[in-house]
Amino acid sequence: MTGPSELKPESVSLNPVGTAAAPVPELLCIFGTGDLGRSLGLRLLQSGYRVVYGSRRPHSCGPLPQGAQAMTHAAAAKSASLIFVCVHREHYEFLETLAPHLEGKVLVDLSNNLKKDVYPEANATYLQRLVPGAAVVKGLNTLSAWALQNGLLAGKQVFLCGNSAEAKRTVAELATKLGLTVSDKGSLSAARELEDFPLRLFPEWRLSLSVALGLITFFFFYLLIRDVIYAYVEKGNDISYRIMVSLANKVFPIVSLIMLSLCYLPGCIAAFLQLYRGTKYRRFPHWLDRWMLCRKQMGLVALGLALLHAIHTFIIPIRYSVRHKIISGVVNEMKNNKTTPFDFDNTEAWGTDSFYVLGVMGFFLYILLGLTSLPSVGGTLSWREFSFIQSKLGHLTLMICTAHGYLYGWNKFLRASTYKWYTPPGYMLCLIVPSVVLVLKALLLLPCVDRTLTRIRQGWERNPPRDEINKASNL
Amino acid sequence: MTGPSELKPESVSLNPVGTAAAPVPELLCIFGTGDLGRSLGLRLLQSGYRVVYGSRRPHSCGPLPQGAQAMTHAAAAKSASLIFVCVHREHYEFLETLAPHLEGKVLVDLSNNLKKDVYPEANATYLQRLVPGAAVVKGLNTLSAWALQNGLLAGKQVFLCGNSAEAKRTVAELATKLGLTVSDKGSLSAARELEDFPLRLFPEWRLSLSVALGLITFFFFYLLIRDVIYAYVEKGNDISYRIMVSLANKVFPIVSLIMLSLCYLPGCIAAFLQLYRGTKYRRFPHWLDRWMLCRKQMGLVALGLALLHAIHTFIIPIRYSVRHKIISGVVNEMKNNKTTPFDFDNTEAWGTDSFYVLGVMGFFLYILLGLTSLPSVGGTLSWREFSFIQSKLGHLTLMICTAHGYLYGWNKFLRASTYKWYTPPGYMLCLIVPSVVLVLKALLLLPCVDRTLTRIRQGWERNPPRDEINKASNL
Amino acid sequence: MTGPSELKPESVSLNPVGTAAAPVPELLCIFGTGDLGRSLGLRLLQSGYRVVYGSRRPHSCGPLPQGAQAMTHAAAAKSASLIFVCVHREHYEFLETLAPHLEGKVLVDLSNNLKKDVYPEANATYLQRLVPGAAVVKGLNTLSAWALQNGLLAGKQVFLCGNSAEAKRTVAELATKLGLTVSDKGSLSAARELEDFPLRLFPEWRLSLSVALGLITFFFFYLLIRDVIYAYVEKGNDISYRIMVSLANKVFPIVSLIMLSLCYLPGCIAAFLQLYRGTKYRRFPHWLDRWMLCRKQMGLVALGLALLHAIHTFIIPIRYSVRHKIISGVVNEMKNNKTTPFDFDNTEAWGTDSFYVLGVMGFFLYILLGLTSLPSVGGTLSWREFSFIQSKLGHLTLMICTAHGYLYGWNKFLRASTYKWYTPPGYMLCLIVPSVVLVLKALLLLPCVDRTLTRIRQGWERNPPRDEINKASNL
Repeated sequence: MTGPSELKPESVSLNPVGTAAAPVPELLCIFGTGDLGRSLGLRLLQSGYRVVYGSRRPHSCGPLPQGAQAMTHAAAAKSASLIFVCVHREHYEFLETLAPHLEGKVLVDLSNNLKKDVYPEANATYLQRLVPGAAVVKGLNTLSAWALQNGLLAGKQVFLCGNSAEAKRTVAELATKLGLTVSDKGSLSAARELEDFPLRLFPEWRLSLSVALGLITFFFFYLLIRDVIYAYVEKGNDISYRIMVSLANKVFPIVSLIMLSLCYLPGCIAAFLQLYRGTKYRRFPHWLDRWMLCRKQMGLVALGLALLHAIHTFIIPIRYSVRHKIISGVVNEMKNNKTTPFDFDNTEAWGTDSFYVLGVMGFFLYILLGLTSLPSVGGTLSWREFSFIQSKLGHLTLMICTAHGYLYGWNKFLRASTYKWYTPPGYMLCLIVPSVVLVLKALLLLPCVDRTLTRIRQGWERNPPRDEINKASNL
Repeated sequence: MTGPSELKPESVSLNPVGTAAAPVPELLCIFGTGDLGRSLGLRLLQSGYRVVYGSRRPHSCGPLPQGAQAMTHAAAAKSASLIFVCVHREHYEFLETLAPHLEGKVLVDLSNNLKKDVYPEANATYLQRLVPGAAVVKGLNTLSAWALQNGLLAGKQVFLCGNSAEAKRTVAELATKLGLTVSDKGSLSAARELEDFPLRLFPEWRLSLSVALGLITFFFFYLLIRDVIYAYVEKGNDISYRIMVSLANKVFPIVSLIMLSLCYLPGCIAAFLQLYRGTKYRRFPHWLDRWMLCRKQMGLVALGLALLHAIHTFIIPIRYSVRHKIISGVVNEMKNNKTTPFDFDNTEAWGTDSFYVLGVMGFFLYILLGLTSLPSVGGTLSWREFSFIQSKLGHLTLMICTAHGYLYGWNKFLRASTYKWYTPPGYMLCLIVPSVVLVLKALLLLPCVDRTLTRIRQGWERNPPRDEINKASNL
Repeated sequence: MTGPSELKPESVSLNPVGTAAAPVPELLCIFGTGDLGRSLGLRLLQSGYRVVYGSRRPHSCGPLPQGAQAMTHAAAAKSASLIFVCVHREHYEFLETLAPHLEGKVLVDLSNNLKKDVYPEANATYLQRLVPGAAVVKGLNTLSAWALQNGLLAGKQVFLCGNSAEAKRTVAELATKLGLTVSDKGSLSAARELEDFPLRLFPEWRLSLSVALGLITFFFFYLLIRDVIYAYVEKGNDISYRIMVSLANKVFPIVSLIMLSLCYLPGCIAAFLQLYRGTKYRRFPHWLDRWMLCRKQMGLVALGLALLHAIHTFIIPIRYSVRHKIISGVVNEMKNNKTTPFDFDNTEAWGTDSFYVLGVMGFFLYILLGLTSLPSVGGTLSWREFSFIQSKLGHLTLMICTAHGYLYGWNKFLRASTYKWYTPPGYMLCLIVPSVVLVLKALLLLPCVDRTLTRIRQGWERNPPRDEINKASNL
């Protein structure tokens, strides 16, 4: 990391070394005294730099960090070789008039826009056009004034791009000194991409959320028709109040289980595709790649829905309609002097309790899976630990939750009354995908299949290409 | 980061380069063989340094990390140019006698005190006074022996201060090699501040916790008087058992909702202040700044209280008094042969179920907000994602929770019996602040107001100062 | 970090500096075009390097990252001085034939095995044996293709080892440029250790999980005999359905409380040992060291069990058997026209509600403790904050949970029917260890004991060794 100094440990001594005797801290210039400019200045001063601000009114630009000076833009530009431009793009024109003073300087463009595609060219490209003699570096624009002010920079990744490698290196060294981790994104043509970073709104969540919303909508209306409308049409009962809690508590677990199985389905498909092709060197179809990239999000959406299911279940006994049903049941039985319903049914007790225990265990494992997908927890796991949790524990969770679903309907599968209007109940529909995934996974675990798959994943090919001579295969 | 080596890619070659042929690892000295000294030595050895210990009894100082040597303090001091002082301040005097051997060396003071303000001067200042010829650097004192031993250093931020820039740079390079992120805090006069770091006890939580505790105390006694004491005085009922769960389950949600709205109130006040002033260039009053800085803590306290509310709600049906009330209700009704209360009230079912669903949704959003305030999760969000979660989702949570509160009292607002002793019930009091915040926020979202505010935040000013010539405005 | 450039701030200027005018990015070679090779190449290209692939079939090796070139292994080896070997160990032989081209190059071995101890020597040692003229560096093997592809590298710690310091430095600089934190593990003899890293499976969790499993098994069978089998043998009741939920909800809280107290017991033992020995300079026995190292895991296991206990408690009222018991109780009472059980017992209400509130509070504190043990949260705490949470709040949690346990049996301790078959009930057994820990902790908090212990921990010794002259003591 500290290349040359390692070569000469003697340079650590404090003996004044001729020329480098009293190093004066480097002077940096910041254009703009807004929140970002001030926070950046504060951070630079704390990291040992000297800071000068360029301002349109140097004498009334408000409180600056202690130790910083304010000058006119021109004077500030002259004094430093590196200038941070913390000004809105809308006001860049004034930089054109300063162009002579900016000749040969490094200009760091930290600006962002409020929306995408407002301007035909990236802010940094525009800046470079205005000041062709300067080396414009786009970057650090993902930092917020808030993070800068509070020093929450350690290890944070920032991006840089620019046409001058020298200028980029200067900025990268500076960013590293602030504790940031720098990633070079290439030439200034990447500026647009960098400016779009802070405007992204969960792009990797879109697919998972769309699938979840689609499933929720479908099952909501399916169950609305089967439960509420059926009861109204066929029996004249108005049980519309069930829309709020009962229906939600059917839709959430159904969609949660489907989403969880959709996490593990692409892995099975990929394995069968590799088995069929007999090689791992052919790319997966695009849709499979995309599906596999959003498995984490699908799992987290499933966890969220499982949490909603759990909370809805916990509040069942305090609901008015549930209490009413139990009480009126007791009262009716008493009045009619029947005693049968009060006989204890051991099978029912075993069945419902097993159903609940499977639900609790599944939910517990769900939470474990969710915890390990936290970046700070997942980061501490070894590769084998991560794959153990996400694959073994994940499939176990799927199995337990599927069993929970089967037990729900254990004594209703063969009752005719279950199939209102000839439609299967929701929990049957939701068991299809998980069952398929579990069967596929069980097939993949068969010793003969597993052995072939392992060999394929280590680089073995059933039909190696003709120009294959040497047997090296790749990690 | 690795400046010169990038300029000359050919230097990567392994051809011996004359003078730098066989670089001997640098030798560092550690005074003190305690937990910290040993863990630090271990870490330095693993990073490729050689380590020598200075000890008062070099031959019986216990197990040292493999590869390290123990000598007398004087001998160890002579052999290295950088010395880590891992000794308690109480025993610094012996360093005075060593002063001749420490001339021109870098002394890194890692000591901490058990309490604040025990000594008139900082440990490092005292050390510098004892050994004036050495360059004392205070720093790394936030590292624990535990973290050092287990290598949990990657990206951790440490602070340095000292009067010699050269000495600080040496220590900073070394710390960087250990994987730490270094922040320079200036001259040795900052040593006291650094020594107080490890003694801080949640300074940023104080305000939020005080407000929460104050509100909890107020509402506890308010509800105690209205519920328990009122029942005892007016009706002679002893319902003091309600203090434990029922009262807590009223106080927690009330304070939680108020704390959540207090998170979003300062943002509204700030926006109206900017609208009124017509500029963003004047500082907010001090109290508003302070309030805005503890919004995150307020939100997390609100989440904690909401969690307590949820758990208290889940255990309602297993409480003895709740079961007793339901059972005795049934029995009484049966004895008196009344049937009316068993009529199903559809409005009641809709009302209570909606109330619960709003509560569940609010709690779910609360948890989402809490998750994104985890450092490792929040750090992966873009600026727009973070603001979407904390602003849009936050206001939605507030709206849902407020609606939850309104629904709680939906059919009780106009009953005289609600106003015991002419006081409003707790949930009415707790709806005031959230309602105000939501109204203010709705006003700010009006297109005309929103447009003006956006312009102000981009630097536009209603009454620009006279020396204003050029229209540049700042990020 | 950027040593030399700080000394000469003028070097920041963009004036072409003679020789370094147009630095060509360094060229790196990657052997192997598998997932890992491709992801690594992508990352290197993004960090500004040029990349060339060595492949057994350069013309049909599938899609490579944009900007990379594919050649034969020999041609690629010749063009670069640093080569990443991303090939399975099974196929290393081809490297032997390439040995002449690899003379003097740095070979980075990133390979891992699928299982431990499959081969007699580490992959990197084998590689060095095949190509003795190259400088083999083992390392970066903990990175996954996934993490590389998604740029999740910032601050991640990677390990290096190798016999050439120069080669290691080159690789370390490169890794640092990728945003990684490098830890040097010494010579190539550490390669085996590095290769075992990705194969670890929760080694630090083993002890805690074994203890928890042992306790769960013991208490499960103990309670099975006392509850279910006793009822069957003595009264002929078949209450085997209780195995699912009721028994689990007794075993989980019992083991959770014991595990929590086992977290705090070793600290007490260590303190008494130091008091007895009168010094902190003698090592603790091995078993105590090991115990202390797994306290965090024990606490997290306890939290997991407490969560299971909480969920099992929340679902109590929706269980068939619980509903049946309540309903049949009402019906029986009505039939027999008894009214006594419906008298409200104020003491019972206070007792059960206090029991629940203590449980809720204990669970809430448990969650707080768990949250602060998340790496990203714990990392933001100061030393005093961390010790406040883990020690003060931890002991408070233990106290509250123990009180929760005592209250459970508050009115049953002296009943003969409690001691079925002369055995004490489970909750009594589980209160032993926590009570002992709390008593020991209370003793340690006595002012006289506390003062002595603090002095010992600051280095004071009751019987200092004879060669003790100077009073320096160590951090």
